Amino acid sequence: MFADTPAPPYFAVIFSSTRNPADTADAYDAVAQRMVELAQQQPGFLGVESVRNGLGITVSYWESREAIDHWGQHLEHLTAQKLGRKQFYDRYILRVVEVQEERRFP
Amino acid sequence: MFADTPAPPYFAVIFSSTRNPADTADAYDAVAQRMVELAQQQPGFLGVESVRNGLGITVSYWESREAIDHWGQHLEHLTAQKLGRKQFYDRYILRVVEVQEERRFP
Repeated sequence: MFADTPAPPYFAVIFSSTRNPADTADAYDAVAQRMVELAQQQPGFLGVESVRNGLGITVSYWESREAIDHWGQHLEHLTAQKLGRKQFYDRYILRVVEVQEERRFP
Repeated sequence: MFADTPAPPYFAVIFSSTRNPADTADAYDAVAQRMVELAQQQPGFLGVESVRNGLGITVSYWESREAIDHWGQHLEHLTAQKLGRKQFYDRYILRVVEVQEERRFP
């Protein structure tokens, strides 16, 4: 649920999205789940935190910018990205960030 | 819903949390809403995206690290932070990040 990330610095992708209300097919859940499984197998993957309630926010954590670029160019991921723009999403903003500081409770 | 942020670079705080299941008081919603209103009035505030569904993820966006530090030290915010640790949250991870790149659809 929480991503057990190491001490900073590391990197992340914040993916904020709203679903296409006209997309009533079941493909989205399966593709989203497959992408998480596939991401977990990529070099440099550190973890993911994801929640949707109308707006969806998924934050994936990575060792380096190179790991993020590599995952962005994965063939099956590219196919999913196309499907995302064509069918799944009404709107999204994707932000690539460097994590500089972290505080935890407890 | 989406934060209409400017071109990078800018900064953000990713706040991932789970609520304390023993906290049945109504204070949380009011305090959370008040903190969003107060944050919006701070210098350097750019926007906020927030969603909870069990796990909560709130991302607030800021012009600078200084703006983030300034907000973190706001007196009313400090009181809310104490209440958060004492009552509202079971667990949280707060990450301060620099946004380096952004892509939007459509």
